Amino acid sequence: MSFNEIIGGVCAPKGFKASGIHCGIRKNRTKNDLALIYSEVPASSAAVYTTNLVKGAPLTVTKNNLASSGGIAQAVICNSGNANTCNANGVEIAQAMCELTGQALNIKPENVLVGSTGVIGQPLDIEPIKNGIPELVSKLTSDFSGSNLACEGIMTTDTVKKEVAVEFDLGGKSCKIGAIAKGSGMIHPNMATMLIFITTDAAISSEYLQAALSENVQDTFNMISIDGDTSTNDMTVILANGMASNAKITSRDENFEVFKSALKFISVKLCRMLAGDGEGATKLLECHVTGANDIPTAKTVAKSVICSSLFKAAMFGADANWGRVLCAIGYSGAKVDVTKIDVAFESEAGKIDVCKDGAGIDFSEEVAKNILLKPEINILISLNSGNNEATAWGCDLTYDYVKINGDYRT
Amino acid sequence: MSFNEIIGGVCAPKGFKASGIHCGIRKNRTKNDLALIYSEVPASSAAVYTTNLVKGAPLTVTKNNLASSGGIAQAVICNSGNANTCNANGVEIAQAMCELTGQALNIKPENVLVGSTGVIGQPLDIEPIKNGIPELVSKLTSDFSGSNLACEGIMTTDTVKKEVAVEFDLGGKSCKIGAIAKGSGMIHPNMATMLIFITTDAAISSEYLQAALSENVQDTFNMISIDGDTSTNDMTVILANGMASNAKITSRDENFEVFKSALKFISVKLCRMLAGDGEGATKLLECHVTGANDIPTAKTVAKSVICSSLFKAAMFGADANWGRVLCAIGYSGAKVDVTKIDVAFESEAGKIDVCKDGAGIDFSEEVAKNILLKPEINILISLNSGNNEATAWGCDLTYDYVKINGDYRT
Repeated sequence: MSFNEIIGGVCAPKGFKASGIHCGIRKNRTKNDLALIYSEVPASSAAVYTTNLVKGAPLTVTKNNLASSGGIAQAVICNSGNANTCNANGVEIAQAMCELTGQALNIKPENVLVGSTGVIGQPLDIEPIKNGIPELVSKLTSDFSGSNLACEGIMTTDTVKKEVAVEFDLGGKSCKIGAIAKGSGMIHPNMATMLIFITTDAAISSEYLQAALSENVQDTFNMISIDGDTSTNDMTVILANGMASNAKITSRDENFEVFKSALKFISVKLCRMLAGDGEGATKLLECHVTGANDIPTAKTVAKSVICSSLFKAAMFGADANWGRVLCAIGYSGAKVDVTKIDVAFESEAGKIDVCKDGAGIDFSEEVAKNILLKPEINILISLNSGNNEATAWGCDLTYDYVKINGDYRT
Repeated sequence: MSFNEIIGGVCAPKGFKASGIHCGIRKNRTKNDLALIYSEVPASSAAVYTTNLVKGAPLTVTKNNLASSGGIAQAVICNSGNANTCNANGVEIAQAMCELTGQALNIKPENVLVGSTGVIGQPLDIEPIKNGIPELVSKLTSDFSGSNLACEGIMTTDTVKKEVAVEFDLGGKSCKIGAIAKGSGMIHPNMATMLIFITTDAAISSEYLQAALSENVQDTFNMISIDGDTSTNDMTVILANGMASNAKITSRDENFEVFKSALKFISVKLCRMLAGDGEGATKLLECHVTGANDIPTAKTVAKSVICSSLFKAAMFGADANWGRVLCAIGYSGAKVDVTKIDVAFESEAGKIDVCKDGAGIDFSEEVAKNILLKPEINILISLNSGNNEATAWGCDLTYDYVKINGDYRT
């Protein structure tokens, strides 16, 4: 299936507008701290949330709103600079954000979804948000600059903006999916919080939108790790406003599969952006596991390798220390036959086999180093025990990770 | 129960000798790379091993020897500089180490236990070991210097020697337990391999020695984490030669409990040494969890907190970022009521409450910083849901961790 990547982020699909401003949550006036995404018409909506027991108040409110609206939303508001988590009045503040946004847009508060990212456990003042919403609404635009400004509004220690959009055909109609994301880190560093806001003009019921999203995250966003710390505020939200006028997807038909493939296409793009821009990262690591007995085994192995601090540090040092790959597979909990494992490293500089049947083989350290000095590294693991595979994304562990996260909050 | 800490390490108990030399596995001639511990008489012996599926060949051979000897051993030989893991001829080499040691000591090879630590996947040459064993045996001494030299022989990137010994009364007889340990890192950096060799002159059957050791590690060595990477070569071995002439422990009687307490006493000492000397560490972190519904919950919470890269980096920066403690509890998998959690930080500079009922409270950042600038930090977590507790030990995440583990192997 081929997908045509286009520009425009969340504003690429028909009927979506966005904006972003600095309202005053952050002291640094050069960084946006409030973002809004708006659909001209009510949209089928779905979301997935962090599995952390400590959940940000905005996640609770978003979940409640989707429940009471029957999966219909028309706007997403999100601030950065404060996670609104572990605060006594967190839910109240998150609800106020929805109410104020709803008033300004003349829509019901329960049709507004809400996100926050930033430091945990510091009360979030509603005043700058309240004062900022009129400007935020007045700046809404379907121009691509809107997506750009919204993307800026949710960034924390991200060093690059993460926007993507794709065009595809659904039963003869041109459909689009767009997204913005924030990755790993905060200006007052805290969680490697991940927020993904996705828009699409495809027509699809909330039920099947939720199914597509939930199934998608298992192979994409749930396969990233920057530092093994699951955030309290992770959330992925999708709004589908149907303005592409395709026949509404209400079953697992061929169009559902096409939609899921397009969703996966943009999700993988975002995963690579998120992992490559992990806190302090100098390298994107992509771990491909093949030949697994089953998919859970392939996933467990791939995630264990990209989560290993020792392996991540070796990648920072461009050190072909494959023993750490074997070690991480060995403690992953996956049932594998160690004596069948092959490992290779690959980058734009070439590919090198380093381990065969669970034991080392002769290889040129110089060639391996040249391969590992590149900014995108593939770790290729063959378990040689079946036909299932998985991919996980991560980054190297660097001095800057320690620096970013060892700094004072204040 | 009171224990009298004494000097002498593994040579403190009656009838034990030790030695350490440089035999040539390491290129650096100033570092010992071969260690031997010897009991004048056959000793009840027990061991616990890493749970990593990828296991060093020495572990396989030690396990086999303990099985064929019925839990009786008289010597432990261990090299550093090479883990003898993921090598085609690993078992053969480890067996040769036992055979050569047995010949030189005039004991059966199956009464020799063997360990290795160092880089994975590089063939281990038996020649320097073969050539070194006569000198190693000739230098055996019950003098405390023997324990010291043996301890040096198993060190890798350890910056301090880890020796401990304790004296206690068992049914009117003075008994001793001594130990040496190596912690986190390698001169060719690889796994945070942990090796613990314990000697005692207490009389106890192999069966109850194994029980005491297995139960002990659950609360001590299994509660340490330097970087979340479970080594392929972790092993704890204990030899009990009975020369203290106490009535042999062959049941779960009062003496068994005293012996276990003494074992725990030295184990906790070693845990603190190991964690405090974690790779690159500037701070020892001790996390006490109280008020848990059950012990597994307390352990899960304590380990999750000391394993969090974000929290470890915050401790390096002396940042009282308690949100990361809550976050790590939240994703630990333990079933806890988040709204009941209290958190405090404590060191020699004092104690400060930072979180009450799962939410932030006002506290002086300056006072908190002064507390967290000290080299030993207690993280006190009250779950306020029961009467069970647990302790885990770890260290901060620093630039030097990245440096040590990002360096080339060669």
